[in-house]
Amino acid sequence: MPERVRIAVDAMGGDLGPRVNVEGAVAAVSRDSALEVILVGDKAEIERRLAAVPAAERASLSVQPASQVVEMAEVPVQAVRSKPDNSMSVGMRLVRDGKADGFVTAGNTGAALAAALFELGRIEGIRRPALATLMPGVSGSYLLLDIGANADCRPQDLVQFALMGHVYAKRVLGIASPRIGLVSNGEEESKGNELTKEAHILLRGSGLNFVGNVEGKDLPNGLADVVVTDGFTGNVMIKTSEGVASMILEILKRQIARSWRAKLGGLLLRPTLKAAVAHLDYTEVGGAPLLGVRGVVLVGHGRSNAKAIASLISAGARVARQGLVAAIADGLKENASIGNQVA
Amino acid sequence: MPERVRIAVDAMGGDLGPRVNVEGAVAAVSRDSALEVILVGDKAEIERRLAAVPAAERASLSVQPASQVVEMAEVPVQAVRSKPDNSMSVGMRLVRDGKADGFVTAGNTGAALAAALFELGRIEGIRRPALATLMPGVSGSYLLLDIGANADCRPQDLVQFALMGHVYAKRVLGIASPRIGLVSNGEEESKGNELTKEAHILLRGSGLNFVGNVEGKDLPNGLADVVVTDGFTGNVMIKTSEGVASMILEILKRQIARSWRAKLGGLLLRPTLKAAVAHLDYTEVGGAPLLGVRGVVLVGHGRSNAKAIASLISAGARVARQGLVAAIADGLKENASIGNQVA
Repeated sequence: MPERVRIAVDAMGGDLGPRVNVEGAVAAVSRDSALEVILVGDKAEIERRLAAVPAAERASLSVQPASQVVEMAEVPVQAVRSKPDNSMSVGMRLVRDGKADGFVTAGNTGAALAAALFELGRIEGIRRPALATLMPGVSGSYLLLDIGANADCRPQDLVQFALMGHVYAKRVLGIASPRIGLVSNGEEESKGNELTKEAHILLRGSGLNFVGNVEGKDLPNGLADVVVTDGFTGNVMIKTSEGVASMILEILKRQIARSWRAKLGGLLLRPTLKAAVAHLDYTEVGGAPLLGVRGVVLVGHGRSNAKAIASLISAGARVARQGLVAAIADGLKENASIGNQVA
Repeated sequence: MPERVRIAVDAMGGDLGPRVNVEGAVAAVSRDSALEVILVGDKAEIERRLAAVPAAERASLSVQPASQVVEMAEVPVQAVRSKPDNSMSVGMRLVRDGKADGFVTAGNTGAALAAALFELGRIEGIRRPALATLMPGVSGSYLLLDIGANADCRPQDLVQFALMGHVYAKRVLGIASPRIGLVSNGEEESKGNELTKEAHILLRGSGLNFVGNVEGKDLPNGLADVVVTDGFTGNVMIKTSEGVASMILEILKRQIARSWRAKLGGLLLRPTLKAAVAHLDYTEVGGAPLLGVRGVVLVGHGRSNAKAIASLISAGARVARQGLVAAIADGLKENASIGNQVA
């Protein structure tokens, strides 16, 4: 039986609002009897939506009122500062005060990062928390970080990202000795920009299982389990991937519409295409863990539906059960050189 | 009738060597009666391969001996310096001395850049030449630069890339007022790293048709005609695109092999899938122009076959006929602020 765990959910987060967050929470508790979900946000609206929930699930759900909401388009730091009772900050405080074991949101990513820094703070020794995500590959996935928390990084930050990714891959993904790759513009050690050339040298001496520079063209083939880069490049990578995948599906759709033969082929292939799309579907994966803050925080896609919210909550429960925050702190202590680089 | 033009070809360049370069040259001259091709490399080997070429094509082909070759795996600057008679440097000298109107190679990209800087030099006012490529979109393509010549850039370099891209799009692609986009991690002006935030401000004041920050997920939809970024990010973008496209095709292939229904659908869809792949095929596009040096230089993919070499040569002829180098120099003079930023 899984360990008892309490996850706070931003009921106001995401493009689709409270409905999908409440539905997702109901789905998550119905499949995990040791999970308790605290819905954070507009009390009246959440309770109205909970009225029809069966008693079995209702018993695992509670409400934490929060009177304000950070909108998707708001400037993160400003919004979080000017709205102290926003659902994200309130949810993070539950984590800070030991009333929840983790917090998940499909809201404004920048605001989640800002609220986490204000309410939870950084793990001692970590200079910059990083946002990570599981990227799909041909026969497995790999953890990519940072995908947007830090547009400008120092070489030492990339080493800390590698350590945090190492701990995540080991604890949450169950990989015994995670292979760490560094995004570069060529596999050779001599390739890179100033940032990655220096980071390469530091990673070689880090004691981690560093497999060297990796290129985007090879990543889907499973060259590394954890791939580190600065938040600007990582963000460009995930958005470029999204763009290429949409483009290919759109081109296929247009080509299929061109002839009867192709239309028939497309009809026969429909389940196959659906399976291929599901393989690339981020809603199946869970969310992006924010690593390096003193608490479990996962951010989901703004377009999350109820199914994606349920995955996000389950992923949050899994991460919390693995004691990730303590494991990262321990990893820093064990590997003093990586922690000391913060000084 | 097109203007008479002479293109020097690196006969030794690329993974497949002289055979594909000679075959590509024959194909290129056979479809362009005003094109003359100078094959640069191992004289004996090239002439042996030319022996069977029909007289009509043979009359448009000549040989320039070069006794050395830069291999794909060599360190560029070192290789070019230690092998003064390599086929790239010899070909570039033909351009420098007015004996050829352009040079194309499927060889080592870094070596092509180094040889171009040594033999041709930069256009006055340009600090850093950049490598550009046409990226496929859903219904058109866009020019992306820099894709790897400069791993570290200053904001002013990105403005010069924008100007060179503007001139290329206008002259070679025939776009009256090319829309310039800046790769960033968000569309908002406030998004970016230190480099792009400064470049954004400079581009706003550049007099170019700057449409603001663009994200990889939107690029295939034709938001901009010219997209600028530093050579590290640009290189990561093209390689990530390549990786995602291969992964999707591989996943489709595996899914199709799973059931008889899917196999039949796949059979019916075969021409459609082929057309979709052709849409994404870089061998159809030509090559990557190196912008900012005093001469026309295009670099093709190392894996180029004869068809790709023929496209590369035709693209070189097109660029040379449009007087690109003079147009970039004129563009710098007309827009003094962009030229002056070099100081």
